[in-house]
Amino acid sequence: MSGKLTVVGTGPGNPDQTTPEATAAIAAAHVFFGYGPYLDRLTLRPDQRRVASDNREELARAKDALHTAASGEQVCVVSGGDPGVFAMAAAICEAIEAGPPAWRAVDLAIVPGVTAMLAVAARAGAPLGHDFCAISLSDNLKPWTVIEARLRAVASAGLVIALYNPISKARPWQLGTAFAILREVLPWTTPVIFGRAAGRPDEAMTIVTLAEADATKADMATCVIIGSPETRIIEREGLPPLIYSPRGVKA
Amino acid sequence: MSGKLTVVGTGPGNPDQTTPEATAAIAAAHVFFGYGPYLDRLTLRPDQRRVASDNREELARAKDALHTAASGEQVCVVSGGDPGVFAMAAAICEAIEAGPPAWRAVDLAIVPGVTAMLAVAARAGAPLGHDFCAISLSDNLKPWTVIEARLRAVASAGLVIALYNPISKARPWQLGTAFAILREVLPWTTPVIFGRAAGRPDEAMTIVTLAEADATKADMATCVIIGSPETRIIEREGLPPLIYSPRGVKA
Repeated sequence: MSGKLTVVGTGPGNPDQTTPEATAAIAAAHVFFGYGPYLDRLTLRPDQRRVASDNREELARAKDALHTAASGEQVCVVSGGDPGVFAMAAAICEAIEAGPPAWRAVDLAIVPGVTAMLAVAARAGAPLGHDFCAISLSDNLKPWTVIEARLRAVASAGLVIALYNPISKARPWQLGTAFAILREVLPWTTPVIFGRAAGRPDEAMTIVTLAEADATKADMATCVIIGSPETRIIEREGLPPLIYSPRGVKA
Repeated sequence: MSGKLTVVGTGPGNPDQTTPEATAAIAAAHVFFGYGPYLDRLTLRPDQRRVASDNREELARAKDALHTAASGEQVCVVSGGDPGVFAMAAAICEAIEAGPPAWRAVDLAIVPGVTAMLAVAARAGAPLGHDFCAISLSDNLKPWTVIEARLRAVASAGLVIALYNPISKARPWQLGTAFAILREVLPWTTPVIFGRAAGRPDEAMTIVTLAEADATKADMATCVIIGSPETRIIEREGLPPLIYSPRGVKA
């Protein structure tokens, strides 16, 4: 007997930004796996059980969830944002590929959500209005040399950059080094957005130039968006500025 | 007197993937501007008025919407997916920057949504599970040489690529040329996903290799995702394969 495994993205953290599809998937499940703070956002019924784990235990969590689903349970793995963007969907796939044949037979569904960079962009204007990329700054699972090469490549090519996992206690220097690399490639006037907890009560949006960008202003809940050379700032009297990347690139 | 302008993303087209925030913003507005097929997805009340326009008239639509909001109306500009990703938010910002001072004073809100690549990725597994980019293949507003250079840069750097606006009647050759460029850089075994109308009744997901990728299989409603050299396929008996990009990159 095989149960069901649904990997759900709850969005940036504001319940109004959780899709009805995600809400329905949560209501239908009985066992919940996830990083504690993401599980804390759910309001569960007495018949629903939660299994919280640390945010660095993604693969172990994925295996536990697959094992439980394969035993016949209705399982939900909870991600913030979108589960396919630096979140649990890839860990689940890795576990399936390396796991027993029964895990491939599990009824698997992935429910998309609003990922952090979209929520941050919406609060700032339209910084992702043209070609852009999303790069994780965590060097836990990839060499820093790869990250550095990617930053140079995408900035040189004119893409706007959204940085996920910019900084943590265990990774204190990477964001500052990333800004230093980008200052070698991009105009120092390029707008940089520190978007913290977009859409939540503790939201904080800070706009600076690349010259001013200070890595210590970011934390784990921050998505950092770095403009392209085309990205512009519109000042507005009595209102926050709008940051946007025009739809076109001049010849 | 100034009204309000809300730029709303309704998600990929399945009402269950429209956030409550977007639904509330639609209920609160009185005049709706958008591409006809996006407006057709809304169920409006008799007191709500719609102004449909062609999908190539984004800037004119933005100006009309700002003019109407500045006159005191509650205006909603409707995008499919997310309004900040190759959609109306950037056009609104362009119009504000070039327009009269009154437009900067308009109460502007942007409501994010689930953009197409996230919905397509969720149906396929986790192809965006690692660093990725979104590139519009439309050369209406940027030179083809820029697009070509960006494709080479991001593919060489190992990013997964989501292509928006892959093909249209007026742009018939660009996607085929993009595949030819990518075959110069990437392994021909790289997975390619043609994700059409993800989450809607007419959804069609096709997985091929880069060697097999045929541009004529895409249309305007298709988001094409091209893997990185790390992207993998998990075959499953009696189920569609899973495509995913592992969380890590080996040293």
